[in-house]
Amino acid sequence: MTGQIDETHDPRLRSWIESANEPTTDFPIQNLPFGIFRRLDQPHTTHVGVAIGDKALDLHECHKAGLLSGDDPTLSAYLGPLDLSRQDAVNLRQVLSRLLRDGNEEIQKYRRSPSCSLDPIIAIANVEMLLPVSIGDYTDFYASLFHATNIGRRFRPDNPLLPNYKWVPIGYHGRASSIVISGTPINRPSGQTKDDGEASPRFGATRALDYELELGMFVGEGNEQGAPISIEHAEDHVLGYCLVNDWSARDLQKWEYQPLGPFLSKSFATTISPWIVTPEALAPFRVPAFARAAGDPQPLAYLYSEANRARGGLDITLEVFLLTEGMRQRKISPYLLSQGNARDLYWTFAQMLTHHASNGCNVGPGDLIASGTVSGATAESRGCLMEITEGGTRPISLPNGEARTFLQDGDEVILRGYCQSENFRRIGFGECRGLIGPGRT
Amino acid sequence: MTGQIDETHDPRLRSWIESANEPTTDFPIQNLPFGIFRRLDQPHTTHVGVAIGDKALDLHECHKAGLLSGDDPTLSAYLGPLDLSRQDAVNLRQVLSRLLRDGNEEIQKYRRSPSCSLDPIIAIANVEMLLPVSIGDYTDFYASLFHATNIGRRFRPDNPLLPNYKWVPIGYHGRASSIVISGTPINRPSGQTKDDGEASPRFGATRALDYELELGMFVGEGNEQGAPISIEHAEDHVLGYCLVNDWSARDLQKWEYQPLGPFLSKSFATTISPWIVTPEALAPFRVPAFARAAGDPQPLAYLYSEANRARGGLDITLEVFLLTEGMRQRKISPYLLSQGNARDLYWTFAQMLTHHASNGCNVGPGDLIASGTVSGATAESRGCLMEITEGGTRPISLPNGEARTFLQDGDEVILRGYCQSENFRRIGFGECRGLIGPGRT
Repeated sequence: MTGQIDETHDPRLRSWIESANEPTTDFPIQNLPFGIFRRLDQPHTTHVGVAIGDKALDLHECHKAGLLSGDDPTLSAYLGPLDLSRQDAVNLRQVLSRLLRDGNEEIQKYRRSPSCSLDPIIAIANVEMLLPVSIGDYTDFYASLFHATNIGRRFRPDNPLLPNYKWVPIGYHGRASSIVISGTPINRPSGQTKDDGEASPRFGATRALDYELELGMFVGEGNEQGAPISIEHAEDHVLGYCLVNDWSARDLQKWEYQPLGPFLSKSFATTISPWIVTPEALAPFRVPAFARAAGDPQPLAYLYSEANRARGGLDITLEVFLLTEGMRQRKISPYLLSQGNARDLYWTFAQMLTHHASNGCNVGPGDLIASGTVSGATAESRGCLMEITEGGTRPISLPNGEARTFLQDGDEVILRGYCQSENFRRIGFGECRGLIGPGRT
Repeated sequence: MTGQIDETHDPRLRSWIESANEPTTDFPIQNLPFGIFRRLDQPHTTHVGVAIGDKALDLHECHKAGLLSGDDPTLSAYLGPLDLSRQDAVNLRQVLSRLLRDGNEEIQKYRRSPSCSLDPIIAIANVEMLLPVSIGDYTDFYASLFHATNIGRRFRPDNPLLPNYKWVPIGYHGRASSIVISGTPINRPSGQTKDDGEASPRFGATRALDYELELGMFVGEGNEQGAPISIEHAEDHVLGYCLVNDWSARDLQKWEYQPLGPFLSKSFATTISPWIVTPEALAPFRVPAFARAAGDPQPLAYLYSEANRARGGLDITLEVFLLTEGMRQRKISPYLLSQGNARDLYWTFAQMLTHHASNGCNVGPGDLIASGTVSGATAESRGCLMEITEGGTRPISLPNGEARTFLQDGDEVILRGYCQSENFRRIGFGECRGLIGPGRT
């Protein structure tokens, strides 16, 4: 199990970048998530960097300046998150933590030197974030028992939770090509829908556009086809985590999903947050796997390890906000639709990955594995509108008097995620945003 | 609608490569399918070529020799199938047809010249075929009404064909990473299964390993996310076709597939044939789309064009052979398990592609779109063992006295596909082979 707590997690550590020391920042020196961006002052190349307060540290420029290599030759070849082994990532975290720590002068000296042609520190406001890795395959699980029960009730009122759910980490292949980075406009999709009582389906823009609040995990090191990944080694394959909005057209889904599962109801777009939060940054927020109710089966042996049971979970608060066009015009703040926590997932990411490879399926660097909608036991922690509005039957009221069952054009959905505790600095994911616009047909 | 018949289809055309003139070859001069291979005499590079008889024409070497460019500068930049626009591919076909035609001396002259360091003609026996393109996303449809009915009966005896089937080209996202080229050994997958009457599932090697006989289509030019592809333009996006074996573990499938569809029961491996047969080569074998029964709905407007109705289908005979270890030892020929035809698909590839992009989903160069199992109306045309053996209840007898319900270790499955008619030369796909071995756990 990765993620020892060491001096890089010390909450007393401060950075010479002042914004990183503010208690509300997602990106203190204890976080150091990776991202890929285009600098507005250098728009023809892409750079890799880490977020620190409201700045990004440009690792390409640091590398050019000889600031990264230290004693470790592997880091001198560093070009992006996928080039790093898990151990390289741990080592790089140490190097970056030291470079950015209050009192360290190395970067500042370089910035003042004549050889510095491009500042390695740039405001996040002055970069355009890109997909952090090239995503090969995308898999979406269904790991929240609460979500599966709530959503199952809409599609199968008599039979919400199927008999396999507590045995099998249910998942399906998603569409990798349509994954977009936070901020990319979302076109309302069209498709076939058939209302109850209608004789035939019709084709047109969805009338039931929804979001799904999810946590995503990027694979680092892959496995060879035919060689499963044991639960004991699953976390060695984790590159890091991000927020995922699995946009869903519920009316398309209802009509298309039998017998092969969701397809066009999901494949038009999936939005991810741009910063990869590492397993190391999350080490202080490991918690036991979800406590199964009395009477629930224990996981089969291939999905069970004591370490996974004891700390396979992640204590990450996940929130959804809605900002409508009407609210934007009146400068009303985004409205909190729900707040859940990744610790409520019935299956851990180690279990999802081990299950995924248990048939010999090969996962590879940059594959994205998402949790499925993260919902909790309470009404306040339902991770999509389908659950919150009970299938569109109970509209929600917004602060400016508007109501919603599903999303309208001009609505923006904002996901946020963060970890916090008394003993450690807050570790955040930044935002995952998407604004709905009308689609083309 | 692509695919005019021109002089390159003339059945009287002969090649100076004699094996291309044999009536049984899959690769006459009228075919010219693309592939990527490693030459055993040049093992450190990959080459692109076309099959001609029992030889491959190495296009890299032809390009170096200046044989391809002709009057068309775009062809001089030719590096692989995905670099070609549809029109480039048409032009290249003309160039290659001329170069390989009986009486043309250009290649032969080059082979005899001192500047020829590597023979542009190489026996297919002396190359190792590789995946012909880098496959981004893989989508598997369910386009055979007969298959959907037969298989639906196994999973849902009372309700084999769901109400959406005749309206929606049903499909799902497959796993791209585990697609392998013909000849790659297939490891028997493990997974969760639960027999009827058992209280709990167990984990172990599948006891119901099956193949699925499918036709695949590679996307050439993609579409922009948010911009659907009209049925009228769908075929402009077709790069070409191959055979697909969608290996399936039926016991895993039965237990896992609700509610999100097949996942690990399919993702351990999918085998494809190595040669991309172009739409141009198939032009003489276009047929009307499947004739819907009286009472069946007509396709919705976005899935209908007169051209697609009149010639959206493909007359391709598709066969499955089985060769067991016992048969191999006694030198018995592979046994024909079934023979079907792609013209029996309820949905055309144009309809599948248009449906796929109808929600704005972006498809891109190298995406693979497979038909789903191709079955016909008769017992002899059932495209998987699940259908042939009626869910494993009626074993088949093999010529050496063996019986099979599902595949055993040592079994090899061989798919073949070809077009033939009185007026045109046979156009074949070569083979798609996979030999089952025990898996690792």
